[in-house]
Amino acid sequence: MNYTALSKDQLEVLLESERAEYKQIVAQKFNVDIARGKPCTEQLDLAMDMLGMLSADSDYPKAYRNYGMLEGIPEMRELFGQMLGVSAQEVIVGGSSSLNLMYDTVQRAMQYGVMGNRPWNRYETIKFLCPVPGYDRHFALTQHFGIEMINIPMDDNGPNMDLIEHLVSIDDTIKGIWCVPKYSNPTGITYSDEVVTRLATMQTKAPDFRIFWDNAYCVHELTDTPDQLANIMEIAKQAGTQDRIYIFTSTSKITFAGSGVSCIAASAANIRDILSHMTYQTISYNKVWQYMHWLYLRDMDNVREIMRRQMQVIAPKFHTILNALQENFGQDNGIVSWTTPKGGYFISMDVYPGCAKRVAQLCKQAGLTITSAGATYPYGVDDADRNLRIAPTFTSDEDLEIATRILVCCVKIAALEQLAV
Amino acid sequence: MNYTALSKDQLEVLLESERAEYKQIVAQKFNVDIARGKPCTEQLDLAMDMLGMLSADSDYPKAYRNYGMLEGIPEMRELFGQMLGVSAQEVIVGGSSSLNLMYDTVQRAMQYGVMGNRPWNRYETIKFLCPVPGYDRHFALTQHFGIEMINIPMDDNGPNMDLIEHLVSIDDTIKGIWCVPKYSNPTGITYSDEVVTRLATMQTKAPDFRIFWDNAYCVHELTDTPDQLANIMEIAKQAGTQDRIYIFTSTSKITFAGSGVSCIAASAANIRDILSHMTYQTISYNKVWQYMHWLYLRDMDNVREIMRRQMQVIAPKFHTILNALQENFGQDNGIVSWTTPKGGYFISMDVYPGCAKRVAQLCKQAGLTITSAGATYPYGVDDADRNLRIAPTFTSDEDLEIATRILVCCVKIAALEQLAV
Repeated sequence: MNYTALSKDQLEVLLESERAEYKQIVAQKFNVDIARGKPCTEQLDLAMDMLGMLSADSDYPKAYRNYGMLEGIPEMRELFGQMLGVSAQEVIVGGSSSLNLMYDTVQRAMQYGVMGNRPWNRYETIKFLCPVPGYDRHFALTQHFGIEMINIPMDDNGPNMDLIEHLVSIDDTIKGIWCVPKYSNPTGITYSDEVVTRLATMQTKAPDFRIFWDNAYCVHELTDTPDQLANIMEIAKQAGTQDRIYIFTSTSKITFAGSGVSCIAASAANIRDILSHMTYQTISYNKVWQYMHWLYLRDMDNVREIMRRQMQVIAPKFHTILNALQENFGQDNGIVSWTTPKGGYFISMDVYPGCAKRVAQLCKQAGLTITSAGATYPYGVDDADRNLRIAPTFTSDEDLEIATRILVCCVKIAALEQLAV
Repeated sequence: MNYTALSKDQLEVLLESERAEYKQIVAQKFNVDIARGKPCTEQLDLAMDMLGMLSADSDYPKAYRNYGMLEGIPEMRELFGQMLGVSAQEVIVGGSSSLNLMYDTVQRAMQYGVMGNRPWNRYETIKFLCPVPGYDRHFALTQHFGIEMINIPMDDNGPNMDLIEHLVSIDDTIKGIWCVPKYSNPTGITYSDEVVTRLATMQTKAPDFRIFWDNAYCVHELTDTPDQLANIMEIAKQAGTQDRIYIFTSTSKITFAGSGVSCIAASAANIRDILSHMTYQTISYNKVWQYMHWLYLRDMDNVREIMRRQMQVIAPKFHTILNALQENFGQDNGIVSWTTPKGGYFISMDVYPGCAKRVAQLCKQAGLTITSAGATYPYGVDDADRNLRIAPTFTSDEDLEIATRILVCCVKIAALEQLAV
């Protein structure tokens, strides 16, 4: 059914019907949360094996219990290198949070400058490009440093490269871009080879322009036919632009969320630059925890097997929501579209323009918490008031049924309210 | 023997004799390191029990495996609170490095300001007071941020309070002071109650002056009669100056060095201020690791028992060096004095003025690495060229015998070279 083709009378009938459904929902006082991309209990249970892998009498490299090795243990540098398509020497293993490494990377650039360039703090204004919709915590971090954010529209191939190439070629106060290149948060799309190549090789006016390549979902599949992300570091090396790239990832959604191991990967020159500051910042990260991770993860085949087991847990959760949306709306419904991600943690939904806040409000009143409308845009401002992010992984199957029932009803009401005027 | 009372002839004979000894030492090509305060294998072995405390089938709070709890798990907040004499609510548990928390605290003050005050980056110059001799990493961090450092002489009671009170009362660009108040690095002294009280209650011209109270050795005893450090937070609360204090510690020398758990403790207003920025910086620290620490450490009685076992390992190492110094020099020898710490990780040695660099150089040539001369002073500059720091804990008993033999010989040679001129 295409709602936009209906008459006012028809719309009013539908609205009345949905309002009745809404009233029933509210009466049941549900309390369901699909706001954050958190792993569920069954996923985390998989990683419990890790905790038994090192015990009091384990044979284990003694040096890992003491100070030193700022760059992390060789085993995890190697494994992260394989995960990201770089060499072990291009990896620094961090603490439990890749967001923390991103913050620190921006902080060092603000305070000290990047590889000998002028500290970003010494500019009146600097700017970051923000493909939208995107990850709210990237934007919040950037705003907190007082960096101006410029929205870059995304399509199924990634951010609009014509716009990006134009902007970075004329403005040397544009210092960075946030990218979640594989299974993008929230749309789930993977950057095309062309987009990756253009990002790696474009001319930038700023010598210290940096791509913050947050490859958070590099092995986080939801199907047996993974998207293939081009190796940006390899392409950049061929073009001599390898210093442009900071790559981040973590095991937060491979082992324990918030208690995993993170890393930053970058060119040899960047790694030297980072370590030259990092040595004042900390003595070393948790090498015992790094080693426990290595014992559990071992190699890429094993990582893929672990992620396949996680897929078996969470893919059905995505299907529950996607099926409900399909059954209730179908394609060409005129009021809502959504993404069908092949990996990552989110479904992105575009509701009828001007309705996202209203949908979120209706959901909230009905006991369903979703990510705040606007959160996927810099400054929390979605001009079209249209995008909503759904995170199905943490929620039980039973609650997901409830969540979809509420969501479908609220999306319909918000659209019908506008269409029926 | 008081070397300064000897005749030139006597000095020359002694110098010749020591040079012969030095020649013998060099011929043996020793390679011994007493430079850094690292725990030794036997200490670290004690903590191996921790690794067996959480296994795949352990019953354990599920929430600790997921995102959230930026301030840390309640159990470790409580335990650190007891360790530091503050409430659990005044503690944020961090990652594996208290130095990292210190860096972050300075960084936030530089970038955002402290509790609404002007960001320190917006001053032409700001200054920190640095009791000397002190911890080289405090000074390096401070210098890296471009903060000017002012030396404050220390005696057995702590830093010179008359000087501090004068300086902070007239200069509002003095923003901080570094303190290792118990078993100070490197002198081993514990601040007297009067010093603690005066620091807590003095008038400061800067409203955002902060005491960086690095209580690294709060439970790190070398005798059965611990020094008692006054509770600075309690004293400050009575004076209404509690916002002045940031307290740091970690378990790096209780469990694993560089893989422990750190914390910052501060007033409620400071904790709010810190968390308001920290929320952009990370999602949470490693709560699984925090919980493993709590399982192992449990309560203060158990922590004290663990530290008593560590004392049994390392106190003899200190005695080896102290006895050798006593046997070879005695008191009133005129060329070298040293501290006899009741806790912590260091012996501080004052050699004949103008000789520290020469001693370090002689040691190095003879195969003994000691902390660089000057390292215990801001900018690496010890005007009197006199202070050396000795870290006995990491070294085997056999190597400690060698180290003391080399050290004694080099201290004598350097002094005799000057006296015999």
